[in-house]
Amino acid sequence: MKSTEGPAFSRRIERLSSSLIRELLALTQRPGVISFAGGLPACSLMPEIDSDSIPASFRQYGTTDGEPDLRETVAAMCREDGLDCEAGQVLITSGSQQGIDLVAKLFIDEGTVIFVEKPAYLAALQVFGLFGAKIVGIDIRADGLDLDSLRDKLQDTRPAFLYINPTYQNPTGACYSEAVRIELAALLDAHDIPLIEDNPYGALSYDGKAPAPVASYLKSALWTSLGTFSKIAIPAWRIGYMASHPGLAPYFTKLKQGTDLHTNRPGQWWCNRFLQDRQAYEQYLDELRDFYRTQRDAMESALQKYFSDFASWSMPHGGLFFWVSIHTDVDTASLLNEALENDVAFLPGSAFYPQDDAKRDSIRLSFSEVSIADINTGLEKLSRIFRRHAVAA
Amino acid sequence: MKSTEGPAFSRRIERLSSSLIRELLALTQRPGVISFAGGLPACSLMPEIDSDSIPASFRQYGTTDGEPDLRETVAAMCREDGLDCEAGQVLITSGSQQGIDLVAKLFIDEGTVIFVEKPAYLAALQVFGLFGAKIVGIDIRADGLDLDSLRDKLQDTRPAFLYINPTYQNPTGACYSEAVRIELAALLDAHDIPLIEDNPYGALSYDGKAPAPVASYLKSALWTSLGTFSKIAIPAWRIGYMASHPGLAPYFTKLKQGTDLHTNRPGQWWCNRFLQDRQAYEQYLDELRDFYRTQRDAMESALQKYFSDFASWSMPHGGLFFWVSIHTDVDTASLLNEALENDVAFLPGSAFYPQDDAKRDSIRLSFSEVSIADINTGLEKLSRIFRRHAVAA
Repeated sequence: MKSTEGPAFSRRIERLSSSLIRELLALTQRPGVISFAGGLPACSLMPEIDSDSIPASFRQYGTTDGEPDLRETVAAMCREDGLDCEAGQVLITSGSQQGIDLVAKLFIDEGTVIFVEKPAYLAALQVFGLFGAKIVGIDIRADGLDLDSLRDKLQDTRPAFLYINPTYQNPTGACYSEAVRIELAALLDAHDIPLIEDNPYGALSYDGKAPAPVASYLKSALWTSLGTFSKIAIPAWRIGYMASHPGLAPYFTKLKQGTDLHTNRPGQWWCNRFLQDRQAYEQYLDELRDFYRTQRDAMESALQKYFSDFASWSMPHGGLFFWVSIHTDVDTASLLNEALENDVAFLPGSAFYPQDDAKRDSIRLSFSEVSIADINTGLEKLSRIFRRHAVAA
Repeated sequence: MKSTEGPAFSRRIERLSSSLIRELLALTQRPGVISFAGGLPACSLMPEIDSDSIPASFRQYGTTDGEPDLRETVAAMCREDGLDCEAGQVLITSGSQQGIDLVAKLFIDEGTVIFVEKPAYLAALQVFGLFGAKIVGIDIRADGLDLDSLRDKLQDTRPAFLYINPTYQNPTGACYSEAVRIELAALLDAHDIPLIEDNPYGALSYDGKAPAPVASYLKSALWTSLGTFSKIAIPAWRIGYMASHPGLAPYFTKLKQGTDLHTNRPGQWWCNRFLQDRQAYEQYLDELRDFYRTQRDAMESALQKYFSDFASWSMPHGGLFFWVSIHTDVDTASLLNEALENDVAFLPGSAFYPQDDAKRDSIRLSFSEVSIADINTGLEKLSRIFRRHAVAA
């Protein structure tokens, strides 16, 4: 039967996010632009790629779960964070982004209701949306998720899971307080809601150690903790991991098998060796924190100097981002072109909201890969643009 | 609202394949077992992992499409094979298994009809099934797909795509003749059916060069060609690729972005360098072909010696597998335990069929990682088991 309908794509392709953000990011990478838009870790501080002493047997296909040594090492790290975790619960993933894809595969049909933070990690919203989730956002404040709002929503909806990034959140930099973590865990236990806890920035803490993961306070609810070596080591290896409740772990392994068989083994070997010399690793993390703390402090000073009369923000105690609310009626996305004309770039806040539920007065600024001189120059330029569109507080 | 329903998984989890095959394969890896069950390339012939001269900039996150140099190199390889391919049509994937996942994401909703070979590559059946495809199998013969059967099925069904592995197929070893390729391409053009051509074994040809890809004969139909460096270089890197018609390529890139952001860069760098010295690469391929040809010939001889009175097969001209039909009424899967008790293993043919549509009299035998002495010992042992269950031809 001849047809002229063209290719029959799946319904999910109608939900494939527009490439607006990708196109924006491409523009911000033009030479000469001071970009606060990206979220890349600082390349100059990354350890070296050396895999020449890797055993010959590591050339062969590996197991879907991941290398046993690395799984043991990750499980030990998780236990130090307070998670109840053995190596058998750890799946090595191809970046923690893959963990998000596997979560979507496990839980989401078209119309499945899930709860996320508002705002939330952009690429998670995209994947959950692609799979057809009905995404319900819950406001996040400086001390964590708005639990009253969560309680309200739980009155009439049971989501398939709650996805949060509670420790130095992308994009807001918020860190849930211990009190919020404890209360949230109790709520999830009481309502039997699986927790998907994304924790890429936990090790990047600048004012004291990060609080224990929310999952460590759970008593009965299912949980998965997504982690990555991309922010503290070498992102190019694409090595992440999921530590999961035993009721979830086997599903993720089976789903990963069909997705890419297994994660690259040279990268797993490198990561395990990187973690083996514990003293060197801790010293390296200290240097990384010192570097980013200095960057953050420089951005805080520049914001105080240039932004304080028309914007508000909370200083992040970890991670890579400032989230700045501009006192304006204007969609910050509409000002990006003007910023680019002035050779400076930011990420509009609306990108981090579920569709049709966006606040549009915020911007995300990354301090990770910009020199301190450029932080000052760039924010001074940006302030001139935003000030023109600001309204009286 | 408190619930005691347990976690609400997606409907696709009901379709998550049982781990029967995984459990079988685990058993076959017991020390002392001569295993023809796996399909691993020979580790001893793999080139060395050396990535110590990789540029420092390769530590940072990369682009979703893949490294520009490698994409150019792959596009040139594809053009040599007769495909109409520029670098912009190439997506570097995390193994060619990821290509299958991306194909499923692009095309398959619950109930979407797709056409595959019967038998077909096991892990593709699993992924397509997971996404909810209604899988229609079309018989494959020694010279390729049964085109009469395809024509019949096209009378009343238009599949979202046809997935084939036409060159030294896994599991049958079949290689479509040039005549079948030309006629098949014309059929796909006439009916406007996208072609997904999986080609992991094309370079492993033992009796002359492999025929040009089916996609190279297409005039108007959409196509994707899945390739991998896992069979000719280092599988542990997980570097594969998709070369696609311009009407498909951008979708795959967007879908990959949410799946794992990008493929590991050290592996991409290594693969590109591996391909750069063309003379060394061709010489390496010749050695690989010589090794596997000798292995294949040894298995052919042993089959002639031990199996010819109760089984039939076609000698494969490439790839890693023999597909042997036993003249028996018994499901070969039921004999695997007896084989394992005798320290020898095979893969039952039924694993390679869509559910409820299996022929059960075949076995797949891999000759890639077994010594020639073990090929003889193992097949002699297997023949004793199968002969007991054989029926007169």
